[in-house]
Amino acid sequence: MGERLSFASDYMEGAHAEILRRLAETNLEQAAGYGCDPYTEAAREKIRAACRAPRAEVHFLAGGTQANRIVISALLRPYEGVIAADTGHITVHEAGAIEAGGHKVLALPHTDGKLTAHAIEGCLRSYRADTNRDHMVCPGMVYLSHPTEYGTLYTMNELEAISAICRTNKIPLFLDGARLAYALGCPANELTLAAAARLTDVFYIGGTKCGALLGEAVVFPKPNTVPHFFTIVKQSGALLAKGRVLGIQFDTLFTDKLYERGGAHAVAMADRIRATLTEKGYRLAADSPTNQIFLVLNEAQLAHLSEHIVMGFWEKQDDVTIMRIATSWATREEDVERLIAVL
Amino acid sequence: MGERLSFASDYMEGAHAEILRRLAETNLEQAAGYGCDPYTEAAREKIRAACRAPRAEVHFLAGGTQANRIVISALLRPYEGVIAADTGHITVHEAGAIEAGGHKVLALPHTDGKLTAHAIEGCLRSYRADTNRDHMVCPGMVYLSHPTEYGTLYTMNELEAISAICRTNKIPLFLDGARLAYALGCPANELTLAAAARLTDVFYIGGTKCGALLGEAVVFPKPNTVPHFFTIVKQSGALLAKGRVLGIQFDTLFTDKLYERGGAHAVAMADRIRATLTEKGYRLAADSPTNQIFLVLNEAQLAHLSEHIVMGFWEKQDDVTIMRIATSWATREEDVERLIAVL
Amino acid sequence: MGERLSFASDYMEGAHAEILRRLAETNLEQAAGYGCDPYTEAAREKIRAACRAPRAEVHFLAGGTQANRIVISALLRPYEGVIAADTGHITVHEAGAIEAGGHKVLALPHTDGKLTAHAIEGCLRSYRADTNRDHMVCPGMVYLSHPTEYGTLYTMNELEAISAICRTNKIPLFLDGARLAYALGCPANELTLAAAARLTDVFYIGGTKCGALLGEAVVFPKPNTVPHFFTIVKQSGALLAKGRVLGIQFDTLFTDKLYERGGAHAVAMADRIRATLTEKGYRLAADSPTNQIFLVLNEAQLAHLSEHIVMGFWEKQDDVTIMRIATSWATREEDVERLIAVL
Amino acid sequence: MGERLSFASDYMEGAHAEILRRLAETNLEQAAGYGCDPYTEAAREKIRAACRAPRAEVHFLAGGTQANRIVISALLRPYEGVIAADTGHITVHEAGAIEAGGHKVLALPHTDGKLTAHAIEGCLRSYRADTNRDHMVCPGMVYLSHPTEYGTLYTMNELEAISAICRTNKIPLFLDGARLAYALGCPANELTLAAAARLTDVFYIGGTKCGALLGEAVVFPKPNTVPHFFTIVKQSGALLAKGRVLGIQFDTLFTDKLYERGGAHAVAMADRIRATLTEKGYRLAADSPTNQIFLVLNEAQLAHLSEHIVMGFWEKQDDVTIMRIATSWATREEDVERLIAVL
Repeated sequence: MGERLSFASDYMEGAHAEILRRLAETNLEQAAGYGCDPYTEAAREKIRAACRAPRAEVHFLAGGTQANRIVISALLRPYEGVIAADTGHITVHEAGAIEAGGHKVLALPHTDGKLTAHAIEGCLRSYRADTNRDHMVCPGMVYLSHPTEYGTLYTMNELEAISAICRTNKIPLFLDGARLAYALGCPANELTLAAAARLTDVFYIGGTKCGALLGEAVVFPKPNTVPHFFTIVKQSGALLAKGRVLGIQFDTLFTDKLYERGGAHAVAMADRIRATLTEKGYRLAADSPTNQIFLVLNEAQLAHLSEHIVMGFWEKQDDVTIMRIATSWATREEDVERLIAVL
Repeated sequence: MGERLSFASDYMEGAHAEILRRLAETNLEQAAGYGCDPYTEAAREKIRAACRAPRAEVHFLAGGTQANRIVISALLRPYEGVIAADTGHITVHEAGAIEAGGHKVLALPHTDGKLTAHAIEGCLRSYRADTNRDHMVCPGMVYLSHPTEYGTLYTMNELEAISAICRTNKIPLFLDGARLAYALGCPANELTLAAAARLTDVFYIGGTKCGALLGEAVVFPKPNTVPHFFTIVKQSGALLAKGRVLGIQFDTLFTDKLYERGGAHAVAMADRIRATLTEKGYRLAADSPTNQIFLVLNEAQLAHLSEHIVMGFWEKQDDVTIMRIATSWATREEDVERLIAVL
Repeated sequence: MGERLSFASDYMEGAHAEILRRLAETNLEQAAGYGCDPYTEAAREKIRAACRAPRAEVHFLAGGTQANRIVISALLRPYEGVIAADTGHITVHEAGAIEAGGHKVLALPHTDGKLTAHAIEGCLRSYRADTNRDHMVCPGMVYLSHPTEYGTLYTMNELEAISAICRTNKIPLFLDGARLAYALGCPANELTLAAAARLTDVFYIGGTKCGALLGEAVVFPKPNTVPHFFTIVKQSGALLAKGRVLGIQFDTLFTDKLYERGGAHAVAMADRIRATLTEKGYRLAADSPTNQIFLVLNEAQLAHLSEHIVMGFWEKQDDVTIMRIATSWATREEDVERLIAVL
Repeated sequence: MGERLSFASDYMEGAHAEILRRLAETNLEQAAGYGCDPYTEAAREKIRAACRAPRAEVHFLAGGTQANRIVISALLRPYEGVIAADTGHITVHEAGAIEAGGHKVLALPHTDGKLTAHAIEGCLRSYRADTNRDHMVCPGMVYLSHPTEYGTLYTMNELEAISAICRTNKIPLFLDGARLAYALGCPANELTLAAAARLTDVFYIGGTKCGALLGEAVVFPKPNTVPHFFTIVKQSGALLAKGRVLGIQFDTLFTDKLYERGGAHAVAMADRIRATLTEKGYRLAADSPTNQIFLVLNEAQLAHLSEHIVMGFWEKQDDVTIMRIATSWATREEDVERLIAVL
């Protein structure tokens, strides 16, 4: 990775040291496979407690695209599609995983990476009003990311409104929390885990991008939302024989609020970078309060910064380039200082 | 269907009388199943001749959505999607058939219902340029309708340009000819069957909307484009045991140019209606030269016309409604006179 | 088809003359598309009456494999498979259509082409008892053919037993009636349409092999068994724009018991052939009372018969060959006399 | 997991200590995602060297069912199925994963868990000879496990014969090596990694059951066997963002032959148990030389052993029960001594 500092993404390091310590500590204990071990059960219990959802069903999967594909396929009927922002991860960056599972992504225009209640309602109303609707894909689910792919956050008002629409229309609401730690650790965030469990039908708590080696915890607040979900996971090739690998990680992340603390650290680091950027007159593409910063750079700026740090490429627009700087649970203060010096 | 004249669609009547006559005439002959009968073989030969494609592989299917789904699935690799206009039949009105087959429809903005070479090229270039392309759906095919869903026609220049892009990029070009008779019978049309065979990798000659009881003839100009296509058709539940039912119909349609003559009749009828509409100052939504007319009606106009004729509902826009008038091979001159009187 | 008489299958001719007459008679009437026309509605009503199932949902599809694939996919959950005889049409002769729809066919050994209640119960019990069952395909449906692929018939006792097992285990029972006319027209048959509606969750009344040009009537005795089945049919590419083509045919078949009469004729013809075969000492592979006869022929017999008639090839076993003779609604008495003369 | 010793499976412990050490040691280094990091590249190089296949394409997946489903789907055409033993993992214990991917498993009778060249040839010949073959699933691939699910091993003669059949028939040969370490570490084994690369078109080197936390290395000896396999993996939800987690593990397993040494240890432990079993007159269900032992136990034996050790349940047959004892890379000598004492 050369000598340049990298802020390209939030999944460049391994895992919280405590996770590795516990994997090592329990390594030679014998445990049942497929998530039936006591560590996984402990993780489930801690997540249920954090979500104030004592009856919730919790399943551990390996990654975000996997969680999205399996959850969406399992909840939709064949004739249904999933509503998502046109910037949503499932819309753009999952190589057609949802369609490979048989379903259309009904992409709606975003506002700062967010779906609006208004747009969702319009989509549902227009479907119902269409005389050809029986020849069309029926909107059967709503997919949100929180934080979004642009690092933005839904307000509680926005989420309550979207949840209410879903319940009125009897379609499930699914929240992709691949970066949920960076919301939970953000002062501007209003959504608690308990609120997520109350407002959605299923959501996941991202591990991979938030300090685990791998893993996402899928939470169905209401048990048996999808009968035989375990077998569906197996059939999808997503069941780990050594389920403990995921269980131990989430057990650790949900001990002493490690999950949120990792998120808070990243946001604090990003805030310092943002402050300097503002001070120095850099232009931001989106007003994100979490761990991702989207910079609009002209050629000179891009060349200068690229000399010293690695950023993530986002988009080329005419004469500017949008680049992403991401901090994480692992970002070192000294590296942030060095970045600030460069700016 | 009541006493009002209906111009709602081009599939409201049965079939050309000659088709019924031949079905009756051959009814008690014994013939091999699954399209291995002599009538089907004769139909294939006539289509090959009409297409000047002596080695073409011709398969008969029952309907348009079926043809689209099977052809697209058979040609795409799992990681690929199909480029189509955002007004394309596969994009909007096939209930997610393409996605149910595992593939994303990559919808591009249309111009009068048509894809442009420019937009296709942009889509391919932007895919290739994206550093994340391996996480995205690869554009693997182009789908056109001719006539389009708006009744418009591609010029030969447009089709040559699109075909050239597809060949340069080594992706197949698929032309949906559900209403091809209404192009072939239209003075403004430039595309011959021979040109379709030369420019595309697969296309179909629509029967259902062009005078058959049911049936579409899928033409692969180059044999073995899809190995074992017969078995794929069977597996898709699309193989008729009595293949003769399709074979006899296409044999008849391709005898004495019945197919084109039916189309020409419909276009002549539509031209007379269009002339009156223009004269009377009606506004048209699209400038279609074929058998479909899209009217922009205000409330008073809509009420008046609806009293006397049945039109197809297309779209509601603020204070106007877009309605479709379609003629067909079966439209009677006296009915057109009555419609003109109403206008 | 040469000069030899053909008894190769029951789908070698077109359709009952009355069907063609009615198609011609109604040909130029305008009717709504997609099965919303009055002929299709009349056919539905007649089928409901014949089944004594006034609330039944009736959908018309084009062929048997199509009906099997769509019905099975629509009823099974992703983790479920369908129990069928190892000789069942879906197990052997549908090119993997069920698997292409995502589901395993759980093949059980047959007895004369029939599944036994005992075998089904064993399969369900063994699944439930298996400690690894969550890693296995869950039996979620039972598929029967009546008549079977061997021309045999289930007794009412057998069907009652199988239906009871399905209800106890809360899994649907699906009866494939591709050749149902040849059961209804058979003196040995015990199953009425009303009993089929009472004992199954869905079944279809075959048209293609029983005197129609094409078409199968899928009957769900209980409405809304599969929500949005219409859209699922559309998505599967199985919805005919001119639904009247199927509606008129079934309306005709269910007028004056044409359906059963066609079946009875075929069985009477087969009975005469069977009587001669028995008399002449031919060996039969299965004891079928319906329109199919399976002959076990040595080389000399095969050569002799093949000189005069066309039979369907079934199976080669060591030094004998099993060939099928099938009669149909269209079989002519004079041809049966000629066949008898040959024997 | 209670106080009883467990020999239930070979995935009850974590990973080789060296793997955990290296994960910890590299934990805070920044590395590119999705398998583009230097550890993963190093692992690929070591595997290529071990396989003497310098151009091989190596992809790391998370588990066996995932590898089987993705590889099989990627290689088969829609009309094809995969030949496997009726005891194969894909046939029985993957919850219909292959069928969910659209393909039939063509199950052939096993001999000691193995497919025979004779049975494969028979299946291919009978498909080709069938006059109905275009209505049937085409055998398009052969799937073997080595060691098999019964712990048995193919001889080189057997593998050469099967490979030759596949090449003659132009269908790929796929070897599932979920437990390959226990073959490589077994004195009776004849198959080297180099031979696997020579004889198959794709195989995988199992990590999960052979000392890794998770992970399987899929090896395509010939590059570009499946174009865009990376994107197919992504679309299937199987691409880990932190690909390093798999790369570091395989890099470690292929350093100083840790992979084979782990296997050899397990086999040595199993051999000692087998010797005692033979001495004590226990009956074995299969003659396995690797790390799995299948015991045929009467009720008294089962009760006695179950009091002291945990075994894996395999099958109940009339009055006996078949139980599995599995050793692994992690089995402790002292535990084997205790087991021997119990016996």
